[in-house]
Amino acid sequence: MKKYLALLIGSFLSLALKAEKTDSLWFRNYTPQKAEVICKKHSPTLTIAASELRKAWQGIPVELRLQKGKEYKELGQEGFTIRTSADDQKIVLSSMGEEGILYGAYHLLRLQQTGELTSPLDIKESPSYKIRILNHWDNLDGTVERGYAGHSIWQWDKLPDVLSPRYTEYARANASIGINATVLNNVNASPQMLSTEYLQKVKALAEVFRPYKIKVYLSINFSSPAELGGLPTSDPLDAAVRCWWKKKADEIYKLIPDFGGFLVKANSEGLPGPQDFGRTHADGANMLADALKPHGGIVMWRAFVYSPGDSDRAKQAYQEFMPLDGQFRENVIIQVKNGPIDFQPREPFSPLFGAMKKTAVMPEFQITQEYLGFANHLVYLAPLWKECLESDTYQQGKGSTVARVTDGSIYPHQLTAIAAVANIGDDANWCGHPFAQANWYSFGRLAWNHELTSAQIADEWISQTFPKKDFLSKEKETCVPLNADSWKTLFLPRVRTMMLESREAAVDYMMPLGLHHQFAFGHHYGPQPWCDVPGARADWLPKYYHKADSAGIGFDRSSTGSNAVSQYQSPLCEEFDDVATCPENLLLWFHHVSWNYKMKSGRTLWDELCYTYDRGVQEARSFQKTWDMVKPFVDKARFDDVQRRLKIQTRDAVWWKDACLLYFQQFSRRPIPCDIERPIHDLDRLEKYHLKITNYENAFEGVGGQLLPSGHP
Amino acid sequence: MKKYLALLIGSFLSLALKAEKTDSLWFRNYTPQKAEVICKKHSPTLTIAASELRKAWQGIPVELRLQKGKEYKELGQEGFTIRTSADDQKIVLSSMGEEGILYGAYHLLRLQQTGELTSPLDIKESPSYKIRILNHWDNLDGTVERGYAGHSIWQWDKLPDVLSPRYTEYARANASIGINATVLNNVNASPQMLSTEYLQKVKALAEVFRPYKIKVYLSINFSSPAELGGLPTSDPLDAAVRCWWKKKADEIYKLIPDFGGFLVKANSEGLPGPQDFGRTHADGANMLADALKPHGGIVMWRAFVYSPGDSDRAKQAYQEFMPLDGQFRENVIIQVKNGPIDFQPREPFSPLFGAMKKTAVMPEFQITQEYLGFANHLVYLAPLWKECLESDTYQQGKGSTVARVTDGSIYPHQLTAIAAVANIGDDANWCGHPFAQANWYSFGRLAWNHELTSAQIADEWISQTFPKKDFLSKEKETCVPLNADSWKTLFLPRVRTMMLESREAAVDYMMPLGLHHQFAFGHHYGPQPWCDVPGARADWLPKYYHKADSAGIGFDRSSTGSNAVSQYQSPLCEEFDDVATCPENLLLWFHHVSWNYKMKSGRTLWDELCYTYDRGVQEARSFQKTWDMVKPFVDKARFDDVQRRLKIQTRDAVWWKDACLLYFQQFSRRPIPCDIERPIHDLDRLEKYHLKITNYENAFEGVGGQLLPSGHP
Repeated sequence: MKKYLALLIGSFLSLALKAEKTDSLWFRNYTPQKAEVICKKHSPTLTIAASELRKAWQGIPVELRLQKGKEYKELGQEGFTIRTSADDQKIVLSSMGEEGILYGAYHLLRLQQTGELTSPLDIKESPSYKIRILNHWDNLDGTVERGYAGHSIWQWDKLPDVLSPRYTEYARANASIGINATVLNNVNASPQMLSTEYLQKVKALAEVFRPYKIKVYLSINFSSPAELGGLPTSDPLDAAVRCWWKKKADEIYKLIPDFGGFLVKANSEGLPGPQDFGRTHADGANMLADALKPHGGIVMWRAFVYSPGDSDRAKQAYQEFMPLDGQFRENVIIQVKNGPIDFQPREPFSPLFGAMKKTAVMPEFQITQEYLGFANHLVYLAPLWKECLESDTYQQGKGSTVARVTDGSIYPHQLTAIAAVANIGDDANWCGHPFAQANWYSFGRLAWNHELTSAQIADEWISQTFPKKDFLSKEKETCVPLNADSWKTLFLPRVRTMMLESREAAVDYMMPLGLHHQFAFGHHYGPQPWCDVPGARADWLPKYYHKADSAGIGFDRSSTGSNAVSQYQSPLCEEFDDVATCPENLLLWFHHVSWNYKMKSGRTLWDELCYTYDRGVQEARSFQKTWDMVKPFVDKARFDDVQRRLKIQTRDAVWWKDACLLYFQQFSRRPIPCDIERPIHDLDRLEKYHLKITNYENAFEGVGGQLLPSGHP
Repeated sequence: MKKYLALLIGSFLSLALKAEKTDSLWFRNYTPQKAEVICKKHSPTLTIAASELRKAWQGIPVELRLQKGKEYKELGQEGFTIRTSADDQKIVLSSMGEEGILYGAYHLLRLQQTGELTSPLDIKESPSYKIRILNHWDNLDGTVERGYAGHSIWQWDKLPDVLSPRYTEYARANASIGINATVLNNVNASPQMLSTEYLQKVKALAEVFRPYKIKVYLSINFSSPAELGGLPTSDPLDAAVRCWWKKKADEIYKLIPDFGGFLVKANSEGLPGPQDFGRTHADGANMLADALKPHGGIVMWRAFVYSPGDSDRAKQAYQEFMPLDGQFRENVIIQVKNGPIDFQPREPFSPLFGAMKKTAVMPEFQITQEYLGFANHLVYLAPLWKECLESDTYQQGKGSTVARVTDGSIYPHQLTAIAAVANIGDDANWCGHPFAQANWYSFGRLAWNHELTSAQIADEWISQTFPKKDFLSKEKETCVPLNADSWKTLFLPRVRTMMLESREAAVDYMMPLGLHHQFAFGHHYGPQPWCDVPGARADWLPKYYHKADSAGIGFDRSSTGSNAVSQYQSPLCEEFDDVATCPENLLLWFHHVSWNYKMKSGRTLWDELCYTYDRGVQEARSFQKTWDMVKPFVDKARFDDVQRRLKIQTRDAVWWKDACLLYFQQFSRRPIPCDIERPIHDLDRLEKYHLKITNYENAFEGVGGQLLPSGHP
């Protein structure tokens, strides 16, 4: 009996394991090959490169060559060339480093997938940023802060003994898009992360990642010396504290010789930091930098700081960090969120970019969609990141884009880096929404080459993610006629357009024209412009940001207001300061504008707000149409999944539109223009409605989306 | 202290009373006048007529004249003339009966409201039907079956001592539109209704109604002799039973000399009836008729009967009643629902109309919106009733419309009548939805004159219900420019159009093309085409009616199916029988049609179904636009109320469309055409969703309408 039971349990387990099979991301279109690959040297990394090509390359033989010389020295360890040999008989992939060979192999396979292989090949690539790093906001208990794709992929309780196959898949996926670093744990860090027990686990992960050339970093808790080490203080100028950190660094590097360094969130949102001891951010960062320096490690110190108080929250990071410019060690880099508030659907770039001239500065993006509909909304983020990277700071004259002031082009800092908060969890599809994989992909590609366009990256991702075959037999599933070219003429362009329009659509239905932070308290899903939590910090409440009244709406950050505009370099400062020249998509970020204000469209601000929210809804509806149209091109499981999420997105778009327009209408006292779709919700109902989720909850289905016909469940 | 408490309670009570003030229906535009009215005779009825004119008439003096002579004999007690005197100095309203004077007075006031007063006046009116009767489905416990406007207005527990002011308002409202009879209690009748205690209460109501010329009728339970009288049987051929009914009739008429008679639902949906004793409907009806005959009372015997069994439910009433034609007493009239099933959004007319030639037959309509969105949906029902009344039965050749075979034009029955199930409750606005008042109004007007158009009646109702003033000062509340004529050029036509389109819109979003009875089980709110209740009668389940399968959809009632078409007179029988000539709006009523069937539009049936459901949704959205546009013309309370209900209607329209299309798509296996708005709900969620209401529940808010952003309340 026992035996049968065991068998039964066994088969359940194997079913469960089968069901949990992860999907193959952007490797989906690989078809098994036995390509000829020549590689004279051997190493774990070269083996991976050769093996990937052997399995999937469909062309003439490829030779992998570790090569010296000026060209390769300039390209660096990670750069590579791919060239067809003079006799057209093989392709030669050359690099000074194994890294370059690995990236070149994936590059070649990518070109094959996207149909961009030219003959002869003459490719030369090297990365825009030296460190291209994911930040996992994963907690040691398996939850993921702002994670919407299940639990953490790090199985801390099973490490270091059990190594999930996910770890390798994760490393491979990152390597294939050029990501070379990862911070394993939440910036809201537990001191326990640095315990010897946990470092053993980190070591195990680092060993899986090493052949894929991915370095491990850790977020640290600034109070670790006290909380973990038992010291009476964590004062960065205290000798015992400095000693503790040095010893801790030694311990780490003994286990993980290529350990990357520390990511630090200090004196921010209640976390400890050097200011607790009367020291500066520089004192804190430099102490850690000194401990890591002998081992070649670095410190990524976050500029995301703000205190409850009178000062405009958007100004605070600049105010705190600018006076410290020049005081940081060379192995410190300041990690700055793209905007001055917090990963909003649209923000102006942070004024710290380009302004800190004597300090290395790196952008921090957010792949996980904390403010963009979690895993329910299809929002392709490359356009958001490109918008930031291409913003001109004017700090060294015209053309001083955020990209160029951070990638080493303008300032000669040795250290360049770009980070993004991951959207990865243990869901079978990794990222929750099938299209959220495109955001992981895009970050990697942009970090490698920030000059790629959003459309190029979308095309790459689509080509590698959706098969190009078998659609003709499913023609009946769509209303449009298909032919052999339809993948290229229908599927690709329509899905690309949907992706490219999706971020602007989200801005439209969530908070257009420079509105920001109208999110529900705490979990940030859905609208709550009316939110009032007794005792809550003012700058955690939407009213702080919209400031709607009978006169108008928006946060006056002009020279007559908080004067946040002054943190920007001329002529941007003047452009933002003047309501007439301020870009309309940032209007309510910088100005409190009259409801009657005449927009460039000729409409009043109120009407424009209405039309824009409505456009957002119509855009969401159009995504649904696009998706239904391309049904024959997508496997049933993914089709159904995306279709279901698009329904939620449309329902949520209507929810956002109704909530915001009906709420703001109380101030504007103007009618919603007659020709747009009417609200279907009642404000009083929406105001009473609360989603029962918390910041850390991450495994829920259809949250915010169950617009069922009644309030009853 | 006690004193203050009493004061406090007192002021709460007075507030409560104030809040419960009923609204003034279609008397809303009366402005106080002191008109000259001449009336030489006196009676309670004449006093009412004169007083109404004195209070509201704005023209030259009016003389009320009880007049004899051929013209007035032909017009009858209820008919009247209104003519300007030869010297243009007064208006003379003449009738043979006080009834005619009363109706004439209201007619004159109506013409004043609608701006249709011509000079000189030369009006001659008499009613289409002799008995114009409301059926209240009110239970003695105060609930109202299929009532959506609160509880019963009959306060049985307080009667006969306390007479609510509502009773007079009710009588006045009915008299003003020509309703001259009312059945106070539910056709699912309690035997207790005939107890002496309750008859005393009925007497009190009859006395309030009498001056308004409204006769009281009662629904009776066929088992009353046994259940109330204690007899061993209620067999209609049993002498003691017949005697019991005779005595009961005598008792009633002693209390209420002008008592109208009985309404009977027998052997239907589990209620007792003559068939329980092996007798026929004729035996039962005739026994009651004999009891009432000496007093001039009548029996209205309902033909709404159907048994669980093999036979198509649509055929059963005809099958049971046709053989009895000619067997009923002269003071019996058969009450037939407009369609053969049950007050669906669209049905063909019942084949009993015109077919029963030797028996008086009366139409039964449903004002309360059991199948039309309760009090949440704006559905103007005059077009539905007109459609039935104007249907040609061909029973006496072309032109034998339902109206003409029931109003005495074609068959010479003395007894003519028309009934409708009331939508009245104790809500402050009487009918739940402010626009549901228009349905009460329309029934009265159509019963008086079935040749009035739906548009005419809508115009009358709008003119009397919405003030024509003060809108210019509220111009800012709408997006359209206003001028002094806007009531006539904007408000009236737009609201009229909305009303006229509303019934077809409901058909479109609920069950177009002849689909029927796809309602949720029991309460009939919302869609449930998938419904399967174990042990339930087959003909109470939507699948019985839609019969969707992989081949097509619809109930085959053609000659190759249930042959229900054979119950219709030629050439209708042949027209319905042939899929090519069957009206498309009844196609799936009479045929099981292939998904691929080519409709007149050139579309396939499936596509047509999709487009029609979608049109319903767009129509609901357009009503919202219309209403928002006319905001300046409506007081805030009614505006907000209707706006809120229109939101529910749109949400419900989307719910209907998504539920039906996604459900039927499982059979059609065809895509929803690419250019229409996509579903936003998931079928599996909708299938799990159940409204927690019962048949009898009637006081709920926003039921089915709370499409909140999540399933959580």
